[in-house]
Amino acid sequence: MMLRTHKCGTLTKANVGETVVLNGWVQRRRDLGGVLFIDLRDRSGLMQIVFNPAFSGEALETADKCRNEYVVAVKGKVVERDPSTVNPNLPTGEIEVQVTEIEVFNGAKTPPFFIEDGVEVDESVRLKYRYLDLRRPEMQRTLMLRSKAAKVFRDFLDANEFVEVETPILTKSTPEGARDYLVPSRVHPGEFFALPQSPQIFKQLLMVGGMERYYQIARCFRDEDLRADRQPEFTQVDIETSFLSQDQLLTIMEELTAKLFKETVGYDVPTPFQRLPYAEAMGKYGSDKPDLRFGLELVDVSDVVSSSGVKVFASVVAGGGMVKAINAKGCATWSRKELDDLTPFAARYGGKGLAYIVVKDGEWKGPIVKFLSPEEIAALTERLGAEEGDVLLFSADKAKVVHDVLGNLRLKLGRDLGLINESEFRFAWVVDFPLLGWDEEAGRWVAEHHPFTRPHDEDLPLFETNPGAIRAQAYDLVLNGYEVGGGSMRIYKRDVQEKMFSALGLTMEEAREKFGFFLDAFDYGTPPHGGMAFGFDRLVMLLTGRTNLRETIAFPKTASASDLLSGAPSEVDEKQLQQLSIRVAPQQKPEPVKQG
Amino acid sequence: MMLRTHKCGTLTKANVGETVVLNGWVQRRRDLGGVLFIDLRDRSGLMQIVFNPAFSGEALETADKCRNEYVVAVKGKVVERDPSTVNPNLPTGEIEVQVTEIEVFNGAKTPPFFIEDGVEVDESVRLKYRYLDLRRPEMQRTLMLRSKAAKVFRDFLDANEFVEVETPILTKSTPEGARDYLVPSRVHPGEFFALPQSPQIFKQLLMVGGMERYYQIARCFRDEDLRADRQPEFTQVDIETSFLSQDQLLTIMEELTAKLFKETVGYDVPTPFQRLPYAEAMGKYGSDKPDLRFGLELVDVSDVVSSSGVKVFASVVAGGGMVKAINAKGCATWSRKELDDLTPFAARYGGKGLAYIVVKDGEWKGPIVKFLSPEEIAALTERLGAEEGDVLLFSADKAKVVHDVLGNLRLKLGRDLGLINESEFRFAWVVDFPLLGWDEEAGRWVAEHHPFTRPHDEDLPLFETNPGAIRAQAYDLVLNGYEVGGGSMRIYKRDVQEKMFSALGLTMEEAREKFGFFLDAFDYGTPPHGGMAFGFDRLVMLLTGRTNLRETIAFPKTASASDLLSGAPSEVDEKQLQQLSIRVAPQQKPEPVKQG
Repeated sequence: MMLRTHKCGTLTKANVGETVVLNGWVQRRRDLGGVLFIDLRDRSGLMQIVFNPAFSGEALETADKCRNEYVVAVKGKVVERDPSTVNPNLPTGEIEVQVTEIEVFNGAKTPPFFIEDGVEVDESVRLKYRYLDLRRPEMQRTLMLRSKAAKVFRDFLDANEFVEVETPILTKSTPEGARDYLVPSRVHPGEFFALPQSPQIFKQLLMVGGMERYYQIARCFRDEDLRADRQPEFTQVDIETSFLSQDQLLTIMEELTAKLFKETVGYDVPTPFQRLPYAEAMGKYGSDKPDLRFGLELVDVSDVVSSSGVKVFASVVAGGGMVKAINAKGCATWSRKELDDLTPFAARYGGKGLAYIVVKDGEWKGPIVKFLSPEEIAALTERLGAEEGDVLLFSADKAKVVHDVLGNLRLKLGRDLGLINESEFRFAWVVDFPLLGWDEEAGRWVAEHHPFTRPHDEDLPLFETNPGAIRAQAYDLVLNGYEVGGGSMRIYKRDVQEKMFSALGLTMEEAREKFGFFLDAFDYGTPPHGGMAFGFDRLVMLLTGRTNLRETIAFPKTASASDLLSGAPSEVDEKQLQQLSIRVAPQQKPEPVKQG
Repeated sequence: MMLRTHKCGTLTKANVGETVVLNGWVQRRRDLGGVLFIDLRDRSGLMQIVFNPAFSGEALETADKCRNEYVVAVKGKVVERDPSTVNPNLPTGEIEVQVTEIEVFNGAKTPPFFIEDGVEVDESVRLKYRYLDLRRPEMQRTLMLRSKAAKVFRDFLDANEFVEVETPILTKSTPEGARDYLVPSRVHPGEFFALPQSPQIFKQLLMVGGMERYYQIARCFRDEDLRADRQPEFTQVDIETSFLSQDQLLTIMEELTAKLFKETVGYDVPTPFQRLPYAEAMGKYGSDKPDLRFGLELVDVSDVVSSSGVKVFASVVAGGGMVKAINAKGCATWSRKELDDLTPFAARYGGKGLAYIVVKDGEWKGPIVKFLSPEEIAALTERLGAEEGDVLLFSADKAKVVHDVLGNLRLKLGRDLGLINESEFRFAWVVDFPLLGWDEEAGRWVAEHHPFTRPHDEDLPLFETNPGAIRAQAYDLVLNGYEVGGGSMRIYKRDVQEKMFSALGLTMEEAREKFGFFLDAFDYGTPPHGGMAFGFDRLVMLLTGRTNLRETIAFPKTASASDLLSGAPSEVDEKQLQQLSIRVAPQQKPEPVKQG
């Protein structure tokens, strides 16, 4: 076996004259009048190797049989290329290797697609032949950056006294475990483990256990109906701390984030990050994960139009709803069709329509203009900064609908109007999430984050008067319109925990039954603690400029939770099931699991 | 919330005069004539805090209500202790904090055991209250060393161009998956994922994918009957490389190992490690994971006694067995009972007995002596270096039994006779494992490692003549009698793979059916590759001087694969099972799964 002395991509003119051995794959070959040129590829890059009857002897014959993706070892001398054949696009483009010996490690069938970037091939083919797809430089770069990102996380956390602790993958199913993957136990027939949706319980127990600063790059599992950007198993950088305030924690996490972006892609993230209260995020951007790379804010005009001649405005405001508007600057050139398309767009997000006013030729135009009073027009002009050439877009509905419609419209306009600086990474913390949300169906309050999320101290009296207004010490890290992390400070005081359970309609006894050993642990001296988790797959996706989580994972699953490479999941031996004391039940349609 | 300014264990005399805030747990309290002394504990250590009516005011009253494991914040001034109360056993023993303010974060029930090292309590209680057990300094140290060990592995591998790649946990069940944990799929009724017993297939696919150097600190799963030193989920440092020879790989792994021991426990491991062929390891030590901290080698005396008057010796040798001996130096003082106890000891390992000769008072004594000729005695004296005061111990049987019996006897004697330097870490590679083993039951050859293990090139002709003699390019890393890692170079040439399958009684077609997509991948240009895995839990166990893998894992499972903390595994909702299209089958005794 001819073992390599050098790597393809790392040879330079400094090596000229040396005899080297390279190992790699045949990327492409050209036969120029009996002289054979092969681009040899390894992880480090490409090197042109030359077979010439003048110096290659029998090696030329062997090389002539090599096709794309053959794996070979070659020995030869590094020489400068003839100036006319220098390839300035290749880092090694000034040199080549004159081969005197070749060993074919292995042949290769013709691959189903070319091993190069930007290859046009159906994703399912790429996933089925993932071992070939991974040879493409783009995938290699992504996985290497992913590895680097993990390293930066770990180095920073280690330097800041976080201890990496592995928590179990075979855990206990929770009462709300509708999305749990279950694992039958052979040793305990009829009993099951569950795969963790997150290490939440264990990381809090580690704080009870005095670990003070914990992290883990943890695999998590969620058996849900998959959307384009979800995977049944995903990775999060999981963090928990004791004896810190929210502000102290967020400051450390900002430093960590800045270091991550600096060291992986050389990007300088300014710190501290903007802290955006949830109410403000929803109000201005219609989203709890706003893309802050552009303005185009939502403007509340409810007060202006509350007694408007535009009946729908007035009645929505009277009914407790709101009217908000976006000023689409310079869009008065939109065609009738573009304006009409706004209605189905709004409908997609539950809106009944989008009223518009075109400011053009010094006039306000559009179906609702005639119902507006001059005072209303004046007030809207000022409130929205309306000028010649603008289009004013109005949504009137319940707050949720208005924010969904205009929030998404804002994103669309941001993209369509080229308002987004694609090379910017714009971070913010969305803070002060509501602690509780009203579940219409169940007719009761539910925890928006989880039942152990700590409310702000100053909001504690609201448990008695206005639970919906209690702000949680919960926070999301948002980046360019994506949630890339989130967490909360946790309740550590028994009286607060009791108030929380009571708001959720649970007595302490019922809570104990539901949360069992976890709540027991809290009786033995629980420190103030809190933490967060970064969505590692998504961060890598954004760092590498990909648009799909699957591109960031070596062996991902499809949207229907299948592995096209191995064929998992699959049927198994009846004997295996017998050993596990389970059997397959008559087939039934899988019920959708409720999102949320 | 009074946030800490310092950590308990890090204050020194340099801080005298400063006002500090500490957060931590009450380790113990002493009331000395109205002055209250509390040892406050956080992760960094202990600090004595003092409540005195002279300076503590109301804080004394509050502190007086605090019991062990209360979590508190205190503010006060760092002062030097009165010389008479300096505690030289405590790093912070020269100072104390005079408390002026206290905030009780949380009370605590009386813990079921003291939070201190060397606590005498049943392990099941420790596991049930693991969150308290983890507060003990011993557990904190172990988990921190584990974290550090992972860091050293990663830093070294990263510096050596290994890419960390995460491989799936939800994988495909294999035909030999008797020990697979299965996971029913909700989306694909009647189909199952399997949890990986190792990332073997994926790491080899990564090599096919051109990754060249891969690593992962990977969770693995094996549903087997548990022994004291196994866990259903365990962690291995998983490594695979391309384009390296076995020797190159082992050299890198030695460097890695040496760095691990240096940086975690300050131990200098000499490199290179001894390379011990399997045959020699078995021959001299009766084990493929010999403890090399002491000699006491097995000596083959088959030739000496092949026509001995000791009939059992002669007949065993004639029947293809062997006779080996150990010289237990200086053991002639053994009592009759000690000698008699050797028989049941041998029986435990399948031996029919242990013949002994006591060299005492210038004579050879023992039941077999009278059947030995003077020539045999002379030869044995020389071969075994027999001297006054020795006991010669003989086992005669099939090689496997002799090695089991004498190998274990050697270990026992090593311990009993104090031959082991307990502070030494003695590494070796056991190499040249047999490629194939004869399965009596099945009447055919089976792969000793796995069917993709590469044989030595020079042994290839033996496929035709003597398959049992083929040496594999497989290696184990052994340390003080434990296997702490192992791996192999893999077959990358199709003709060798065909020979291997053929030896295993498989046609290429049958092999394709059995190994499916994995074998397909090998058709597209597979590089020469090989790797290994370190048993991370066991390494941490040896590094920390523990004797039980559970001590190295934050939340381990018991020998019956239960989590005493959470109560996993457990029964689950019928509805959950319905969604997964499975049901629990009538209970049946779990069948033991064959080891090996």
